[in-house]
Amino acid sequence: MSFNLATILRESAAAHPDKPLAHAGDRAVTYAQVDALSGRVATALRGLGLRPGDKVAVHLPNVPQFLLAYFGALKAGLVVVPLNPLLTATEIAYHLTDSDSRALITFELFTASAVDGAARAGGVATYVVSATGAPPPAGALPFDDLLAAQDTGLFHAGSAEDTAVLLYTSGTTGKPKGAELSHFQLYMNCTLAGSIFGARPDDVSVAVLPLFHVFGLSSVLNVAVRFGATLVLVPRFEPAAVLDAVEAHRCTLFLGVPTMFVALLHHPAEGRDLTSLRAALSGGASMPGEVIRAFEEKFPGVVVLEGYGLSETASTTTFNTSAQDRKVLSIGKPIWGVDTKVVDPDGTELPRGAAHVGEIVIRGHNVMKGYYKRPEDTAAALRDGWFHSGDLGYQDEDGYFFVVDRLKDLIIRGGYNVYPREVEEVLYEHPAVVEAAVIGKPDSRLGEEVIAYVTLEPGSTTTEQDLVEHCKQHLAAYKYPRGITFVDTLPKGPTGKILKRDLKP
Amino acid sequence: MSFNLATILRESAAAHPDKPLAHAGDRAVTYAQVDALSGRVATALRGLGLRPGDKVAVHLPNVPQFLLAYFGALKAGLVVVPLNPLLTATEIAYHLTDSDSRALITFELFTASAVDGAARAGGVATYVVSATGAPPPAGALPFDDLLAAQDTGLFHAGSAEDTAVLLYTSGTTGKPKGAELSHFQLYMNCTLAGSIFGARPDDVSVAVLPLFHVFGLSSVLNVAVRFGATLVLVPRFEPAAVLDAVEAHRCTLFLGVPTMFVALLHHPAEGRDLTSLRAALSGGASMPGEVIRAFEEKFPGVVVLEGYGLSETASTTTFNTSAQDRKVLSIGKPIWGVDTKVVDPDGTELPRGAAHVGEIVIRGHNVMKGYYKRPEDTAAALRDGWFHSGDLGYQDEDGYFFVVDRLKDLIIRGGYNVYPREVEEVLYEHPAVVEAAVIGKPDSRLGEEVIAYVTLEPGSTTTEQDLVEHCKQHLAAYKYPRGITFVDTLPKGPTGKILKRDLKP
Repeated sequence: MSFNLATILRESAAAHPDKPLAHAGDRAVTYAQVDALSGRVATALRGLGLRPGDKVAVHLPNVPQFLLAYFGALKAGLVVVPLNPLLTATEIAYHLTDSDSRALITFELFTASAVDGAARAGGVATYVVSATGAPPPAGALPFDDLLAAQDTGLFHAGSAEDTAVLLYTSGTTGKPKGAELSHFQLYMNCTLAGSIFGARPDDVSVAVLPLFHVFGLSSVLNVAVRFGATLVLVPRFEPAAVLDAVEAHRCTLFLGVPTMFVALLHHPAEGRDLTSLRAALSGGASMPGEVIRAFEEKFPGVVVLEGYGLSETASTTTFNTSAQDRKVLSIGKPIWGVDTKVVDPDGTELPRGAAHVGEIVIRGHNVMKGYYKRPEDTAAALRDGWFHSGDLGYQDEDGYFFVVDRLKDLIIRGGYNVYPREVEEVLYEHPAVVEAAVIGKPDSRLGEEVIAYVTLEPGSTTTEQDLVEHCKQHLAAYKYPRGITFVDTLPKGPTGKILKRDLKP
Repeated sequence: MSFNLATILRESAAAHPDKPLAHAGDRAVTYAQVDALSGRVATALRGLGLRPGDKVAVHLPNVPQFLLAYFGALKAGLVVVPLNPLLTATEIAYHLTDSDSRALITFELFTASAVDGAARAGGVATYVVSATGAPPPAGALPFDDLLAAQDTGLFHAGSAEDTAVLLYTSGTTGKPKGAELSHFQLYMNCTLAGSIFGARPDDVSVAVLPLFHVFGLSSVLNVAVRFGATLVLVPRFEPAAVLDAVEAHRCTLFLGVPTMFVALLHHPAEGRDLTSLRAALSGGASMPGEVIRAFEEKFPGVVVLEGYGLSETASTTTFNTSAQDRKVLSIGKPIWGVDTKVVDPDGTELPRGAAHVGEIVIRGHNVMKGYYKRPEDTAAALRDGWFHSGDLGYQDEDGYFFVVDRLKDLIIRGGYNVYPREVEEVLYEHPAVVEAAVIGKPDSRLGEEVIAYVTLEPGSTTTEQDLVEHCKQHLAAYKYPRGITFVDTLPKGPTGKILKRDLKP
């Protein structure tokens, strides 16, 4: 009885050793190389005195060394703690301390904050991936030191329910917490998610979603390795870089968040051969129906499939499984083995129908073990065996789920619920609107008032009044925004998701 | 974080509720019926005071109630202890006591020994499945009582590594021991095994292998339910009954042990339409190459694929995955995620090649948690993370594994190893031979001498001398049998495997 998630690498490397696992710029690493080099990392990490269950922070962008660090740590029975490269030194210190990380693998560009953070956390062996060949600063060692060890074939055989990854997330509230995901959960998720969209060895997937985030980690990296496909690593989202990757490597799959779809939609693609793309998968936030329609029109042959998941649910939870079965605007139905329902604040299941909006709760193999060292937060999130997602939604008569908004984003105006997403949908239908975010503004009379932040197409002359009128035509009187602020960009998180908490109400 | 193997039923019942899950005689039960009725059993078992982790013995032949008892117990978080219906009262008492079973579900035909055994074990609630409608004897209750409860939707959400089934096996030696198989292991095994032979919802599988045995339980029952296929329950192996089932229900899959293949081969099939069969899967013992060739000739369109597994490895361990990739006489290569190697008595891996015969050892998600309450036996079987199969074999240059024999069946004649299976292979090539079993007979000079038991085609006039001459032509001088006993039948275990321990040396 044992299972290690790194089996996905070992099996695919055995099946086609010489196939590229990842392209990065004009270089490529094969399955056999990643298998052998991650084996060296595994031996080296154990050589530092790390033992199964110890934590290793991986603070890297989408570069090949991410794969070596990730699979190396897994093979050694260590727990991977992926960190956003853009964290400040204070944040890094927090994450390292909270997770009890004993080693940190960071990237040249982020060395200053990483080394500072590691020093504050104390006792964290720090290794730097260098792109320039420059030596690491004092207090850190070159990542290549971890590749100097022999690959001894180390492959830790632990329980399938051992923690493989601690994924930090703010959850619905509070400080970042480490969601404990097991080898079993991550295996199930990549296997089931990949099966849904028919992942296969000849797929080439654009890896632009950050691999340190659950969506990129499970649905991009793990799926590709599980099914023996190839990744094209794109370390930073730029529409041109994604389209270049698709053209250069004949990519078949693109996974992204809605803001990426919007950006690709508004980027010129004339003269490019993008016909290799067969599917584009969206998650991380709700996708406006208008964007799906326009995207499929712009990229013929591509089907856009929307799914839904959270760090705490090892990524994929619900999915629209095919162009035939999908419902635009819906997040689909639960994947195999997962239960999902909509409940009121007492936990009572609500009837089907759009009128019955409640919190989406989830049960099944995909739900995390808990938040690392936070029994109270875990108990609050996992009630009666159900994970409380913090997302508001409903289930329609056909069993499809719809997210209407984050529970915490709900606006209550004069006693009426306003779901920002519904208002944003209407704004997106206006031809001049590129991106929109609707939030509540404190109001002494109504409790909250509805306002919007919007970015417009370059050169547009659309006015606030125009957009308000447009909304009034499509929304009940209590819903349309009473104020619209035009901005050049909206604040975004690491995956490109709009961060409403950074918008001034 | 939770997983229950009964998810395979729940998901398939949701996908096609009205499809027959199992045919039994001229009756059928649908997926929805099995789901609902097993839900009643789950509630009723809990109503007896049984709590997650408690054991329920299922002492049934291949009847629909097996499915209700099995999935009912799983849904309630109970551990299923499948028992061979042919056990004596003494044996039943032993199994119930050893497994700490708190309930027993038995069959009318076997009530006397079951009720006696349960009484000796003490404190075991006993329920009888009646085929005739006769009331159960004193000390037992009708199985229908368990169906009188409401289906409350009970679906225990435990750890994926919780024990789902205790499978009794003699292992290599000694008293029957309960191999603890987890929800995760059994899920992985049916999912991976079914994928190998392309199980799909329109498959109809002959369920003649006993469901209380790991091969029938995992590769027949669990595979069918996992992939939403249909079973045709055949409670007792008779060639005509199997062929009738194939014809009547247009069966596509037949799973059996070699003796069943031999029997089908020697049974007339003229005038029957058996063209629905697409694959025949063999396991449980080595299949003579001659039988495979003859079987495929007799049943055109069928591909025979051989696999290998044990109770302790949740069934499938290695497999010949297709007609293109198979090697006749080989047990194939390890399934996804499973490590297999050949070692000498010190545990050192042997080189590839037929000259390097050693014990086959296995590591991976399929290996049992251990023998229930037997830490010493567990430690003896699981050494350094490897399960020691007790089977002798080698790996050829292409990575295929070959079983030469059971370690305990090995004959050492004058210092030379004789693998009975090799001698049996030669005997099977003789046209008059139906079944053959070769064993060692104590010999004061040589240590052991090689002898054979053989059953012949009806009416055959072949003599002992004929067969010895045939063997001499194909085998080295130290290998051919020095004595051959003709018998009408050979002793067989519940799956039809020849029991050499019951042959007089």
